[in-house]
Amino acid sequence: MPPDRRVLGARLRTIDWQPPSTIVIIDQARLPGELALVELRTVGELIEAIRRLRVRGAPALGVAGGLGVALAVAEAEREGWDDDRLARAISDLRHARPTAVNLVWGVDQVAGHLDEGRDTVEEAAISLVQRDVDTCVALAERGADLLSELLPGRPRGLSLHTHCNAGALACVEWGTALGVVRSLHRRGMVGNVFVGETRPLLQGARLTAWELHHEGIPYEVVVDGAGPGIIAAGMVDAVVVGADRIAANGDVANKVGTYPLALAAARHGIPFVVAAPESTLDDGTPTGDAIDIEQRPPDEVVMWSGARTTPVGAGARNPAFDVTPADLVTAIVTELRVVRPG
Amino acid sequence: MPPDRRVLGARLRTIDWQPPSTIVIIDQARLPGELALVELRTVGELIEAIRRLRVRGAPALGVAGGLGVALAVAEAEREGWDDDRLARAISDLRHARPTAVNLVWGVDQVAGHLDEGRDTVEEAAISLVQRDVDTCVALAERGADLLSELLPGRPRGLSLHTHCNAGALACVEWGTALGVVRSLHRRGMVGNVFVGETRPLLQGARLTAWELHHEGIPYEVVVDGAGPGIIAAGMVDAVVVGADRIAANGDVANKVGTYPLALAAARHGIPFVVAAPESTLDDGTPTGDAIDIEQRPPDEVVMWSGARTTPVGAGARNPAFDVTPADLVTAIVTELRVVRPG
Repeated sequence: MPPDRRVLGARLRTIDWQPPSTIVIIDQARLPGELALVELRTVGELIEAIRRLRVRGAPALGVAGGLGVALAVAEAEREGWDDDRLARAISDLRHARPTAVNLVWGVDQVAGHLDEGRDTVEEAAISLVQRDVDTCVALAERGADLLSELLPGRPRGLSLHTHCNAGALACVEWGTALGVVRSLHRRGMVGNVFVGETRPLLQGARLTAWELHHEGIPYEVVVDGAGPGIIAAGMVDAVVVGADRIAANGDVANKVGTYPLALAAARHGIPFVVAAPESTLDDGTPTGDAIDIEQRPPDEVVMWSGARTTPVGAGARNPAFDVTPADLVTAIVTELRVVRPG
Repeated sequence: MPPDRRVLGARLRTIDWQPPSTIVIIDQARLPGELALVELRTVGELIEAIRRLRVRGAPALGVAGGLGVALAVAEAEREGWDDDRLARAISDLRHARPTAVNLVWGVDQVAGHLDEGRDTVEEAAISLVQRDVDTCVALAERGADLLSELLPGRPRGLSLHTHCNAGALACVEWGTALGVVRSLHRRGMVGNVFVGETRPLLQGARLTAWELHHEGIPYEVVVDGAGPGIIAAGMVDAVVVGADRIAANGDVANKVGTYPLALAAARHGIPFVVAAPESTLDDGTPTGDAIDIEQRPPDEVVMWSGARTTPVGAGARNPAFDVTPADLVTAIVTELRVVRPG
C-alpha cells in the first residue's frame, strides 16, 4: 500500500495548535480502531490526555508541554487567574508524567517567555511544532545514513526490530525511531520490521503497526518476550528505538521491554540504535540510576478490555520504562550528531 | 490464604486416568475464570486438547502421551482398528506439538508395551502419573535445597522471578519450577514471586497467579518486557523456570520470553535455575540450534478475547519458545541431580 499522506504526514498532525486557544490531538487511545481528533481547551484536559496516553511519545510530549503553556495563558486570561494560579497550572502540567524529560523541556522553553505577553508565548509554542518536524526529519536521515553505513550490502533490505511507538504518532510528524525506518524505506532499504506489541498498552501493536501499514512497509508484530529469541535466531540486523530520557553517561530510559532487546543485540553483535532529539538528553541526570521510573496502575496489567486476565485479587507491578545501560548502546542519533556511548 | 488442598494438590489432578478408558483433565484454557474438568474419550479429543493448550506443560504432556497410548488401545478395541490405524493414531499423538520432547517420551514409554496387551499398557500409563508426582516433589526439594545454599541469609525471604506456568497445572501435581517455589514456601523462605504474564496466552497471569493465590504465596504479575528491568533494579534474587526441552549441551528451550530473563540474570549476577524432570533432557539433540521451535498461529498475537489489537491485515510471528544458551544457565535441577552447564 502506498503512503497515504492524507491520513498521516503533511496534512494531519499528531498534535497542533488551532488559534486562538485550542490544542488539537489525534486520540491515540482510540487507535487503531478509530482515527479521532480531540480538541483540548484547558490545561486540565491536556493533563488528563497526557495521563491517559491520548497524547504520548517523548517528542510529542515536548510539544504538548510548550503548547500547554500557551493554553494556560489563554485559560488564565479567559478565567481571570492570578499569577499564582497560572504558575500552579504550569507546574501541574510540568509534572503530568514523571519520566518524560521532554514534557518538562517543552514547558520550560515556552514558560521562559511568560513575561513577554500572550502573543510571544503563542509564537514560541508554535515554533516548537515546526521545530519538532524539522528535528525528526534531520535525525531520521542521520539515522538512515548511520544504518546504511553499519549494515552495507543487504540486497533484500534491512530487517529491523523496534519497540513501542517512536513514530509520527509520538511526534508531530515523521517520527524518531520510526522516522529512521521511514527514511530507510524511502531509500528502498527496508526488508522487514519486527514490532514488539508493547504490553501493557500495546503501542507497538496498535500504533506502530498502524503507521507501518499506512506507509506500506512490511512488518510483523511479535509479543515482547519473543524479541530476544528472534534476534538470537539471526533474523534481525539492527534494533532501532526511541528514548524517553537519556542520562549524561548515555544510559537510556525507554518503554519497558527495551532493555531485553539491548541485551540480546549486544550478545548477538547487532547494532542497538537510539533515535531521539537533543531535548531527550538530560545532562542534569548523571546516570540511569537517577531516573525516576513511572509506576503505572496495576489494572493495566491485570485487566484487558474490561476483562480480568488474573485471579481476583492478583497484585501487579507496572513500571512504564526500563533503563538500558550505555555500554549496550551502539549509537544515539539526534538531529545534530551521532553519540557512541558504548 | 492457607493452601486449599481441596482445590489443587492431593485431591485434584491436572491430568489423570479414569478406568476403564477415559482421561480427565482440568481445562486450562478456562482458568482462572472457571475450574472445569473435561473427559477425553478418543485420541482425537486428546490431540485437540493438547493443540488448544487445554492440557499443557512439559511434564503433563509426558503423562498425556503415556495415557494417550492407553486411550488409543481402548479406542482401537472399541472401534475395531487394525494395527496400522492404531499406529497412525499413536504417531499423530506423538507429533501433536513439535517442541515438547516429553510428549514423545511419554508416548514411547507406554508404546513399548503394546505387544503385552491392554492391561499392561494401562498399567504402564498409570505408573507415569504417580512417577510424575514423585519426580516433581523430588526435584522441587532439590531445587529448594540449591536455592537455600546459593542465597543464604535473606531474612525477609527470597524474591523469585518465574515465567509461564511450570506449576502443578503443568504436571500432575506440585510442579517443577513452581514446585521449587512451593517447597521453599513450606520452609518459610519465599518473600515474593514475580510472575511474567507470558504473552500471548497468559499462562503466567492466568495459571501461575491462580496457583500462587491458592497457596497463599505473595506474588506480583508483570508484563514480560518488565522482567529484565526488575532484575536490573536489584529486586530479584533468582530466576526459576521450567523447560520444554534441554539439549545435550545444556541449551534450554522454554516458553518464549525466558531467554531475556536469562540474559538479565547473567548480567546482574543472580542465579538462573531450570527445574525439569530427567525426561526433558534430550541427549539426541546436541545443541539448542537443533531444536525445532513451534510457530503458533498469528491470531494469538493480534487478537484478544475476540477483539483485534492491530490494524486489519497486520502480520504477526508467533514462536512459542526460545532457547537459552547453556552458558547463561546456573543450574538444571532434576529429580536425580543438579547439572551446572554454565
